[in-house]
Amino acid sequence: MNVIRNILYSRSHKDGNFFGAIQSIIGFKPKAISHYNRAFIHRSLNKKDTLGNDLNYERLEFLGDAMLSSIIAAYLYNEVPSGDEGYLTKMRSKVVSRKHLNELGKDLGLITFVETNVPKDHFGQNIHGNLFEALVGAIYLDRGYKYCEKFIQKRVIDPYVDIEQLEGRIISYKSLLIEWCQKKKHKFKYEVYEDTGKDELKHFAVKLWIDQKVIAKARATSKKKAEEKASKRAYYAFQKKMSKE
Amino acid sequence: MNVIRNILYSRSHKDGNFFGAIQSIIGFKPKAISHYNRAFIHRSLNKKDTLGNDLNYERLEFLGDAMLSSIIAAYLYNEVPSGDEGYLTKMRSKVVSRKHLNELGKDLGLITFVETNVPKDHFGQNIHGNLFEALVGAIYLDRGYKYCEKFIQKRVIDPYVDIEQLEGRIISYKSLLIEWCQKKKHKFKYEVYEDTGKDELKHFAVKLWIDQKVIAKARATSKKKAEEKASKRAYYAFQKKMSKE
Repeated sequence: MNVIRNILYSRSHKDGNFFGAIQSIIGFKPKAISHYNRAFIHRSLNKKDTLGNDLNYERLEFLGDAMLSSIIAAYLYNEVPSGDEGYLTKMRSKVVSRKHLNELGKDLGLITFVETNVPKDHFGQNIHGNLFEALVGAIYLDRGYKYCEKFIQKRVIDPYVDIEQLEGRIISYKSLLIEWCQKKKHKFKYEVYEDTGKDELKHFAVKLWIDQKVIAKARATSKKKAEEKASKRAYYAFQKKMSKE
Repeated sequence: MNVIRNILYSRSHKDGNFFGAIQSIIGFKPKAISHYNRAFIHRSLNKKDTLGNDLNYERLEFLGDAMLSSIIAAYLYNEVPSGDEGYLTKMRSKVVSRKHLNELGKDLGLITFVETNVPKDHFGQNIHGNLFEALVGAIYLDRGYKYCEKFIQKRVIDPYVDIEQLEGRIISYKSLLIEWCQKKKHKFKYEVYEDTGKDELKHFAVKLWIDQKVIAKARATSKKKAEEKASKRAYYAFQKKMSKE
């Protein structure tokens, strides 16, 4: 167990790559890396700071959750001027749902950085969301609210938050597009192609062909998400056309 | 009913004093007064903006609540390094409790600014807290997160947030002090004196005498609060002494 931990630990913290990996995930340079170190210390290590206080990521979760909630609240407030208080509350709870946060943390591969005495496969799904919240908390302490906003915009809002989808008006752009192609007898194809991006994270790149033309391209952390993103782009490109037919 | 409303309305918005009153409450100049106007429009007026969206303070409540939560979260995180996630959550919910927010809004006299079609004495207690939240939301939109923090620090944290009291370790500094004076046979007296402050809000000033000496002074929006504040100051002054006896 400790062997596994030590291998992972050496891969992340000890060889100096941790700084670079965090920078790549958050999109800017950390000032005080210690905040990010703390964001990946699991309670099982039973670490204490010099004053004897627990040193793990649980307090950072609390902080990150609060920042996330207020940033998403402000985003929704501005984005949906017609939504009343009840609507805004409901939408926010969808964005910051446990399931969604777990997805976010998982896609960023945060678990690879965890220092723990528990084998990582013993953790449930919630560790991903907890680490994501802790990371947001660390960003707040390190760089302040503005940088939290930047990070949330880049990693939560841009790739995931789609008001129409959240409202359940559109469940999947891919199925919407396929349905339309079938109805209109258009040939379509999703093609995974070579991704030359240099991100730390593995990305999938997808081209969407309709009638021998590339209509949209997209990159994401899973093939499914890249397809959905490409479909969404194609959907907006076609929207006028589709609404007329 | 409308007469009352119009009198209050003219006292606040129409004669230009609204700007000054808001400035005095928030402690800095509003940039766009329209945000603050909105923070006092009750839904009973059924106002709409140019796009047909509801124009009242309810959406601002949502926004202000979110800002308040994250600012208090950060404050507690920094202030209580020994508190775990559960502790921090519990403490925050005490600070931002409905009861507490109602007190805050009431002390600032926010209800005097409300534009409404409902007689003001028909409102329950919650209107005070709702207006307080809406005001925080307006500050966020007008001046951003930093100014929200300033306002919360000045109007919530400095005058009201006392970790020891929140934890229930000390319910009232006044009773603590009285008990000690009685036990130690000290004579004490709380004296309300002339308050020369120029605040918009009425303040009470209290001197705490112990054995013919003024030990502490304090000002607050009620006599009870001023006494508590003076007692707290005296308590900290006497703390060493009391712990030895």
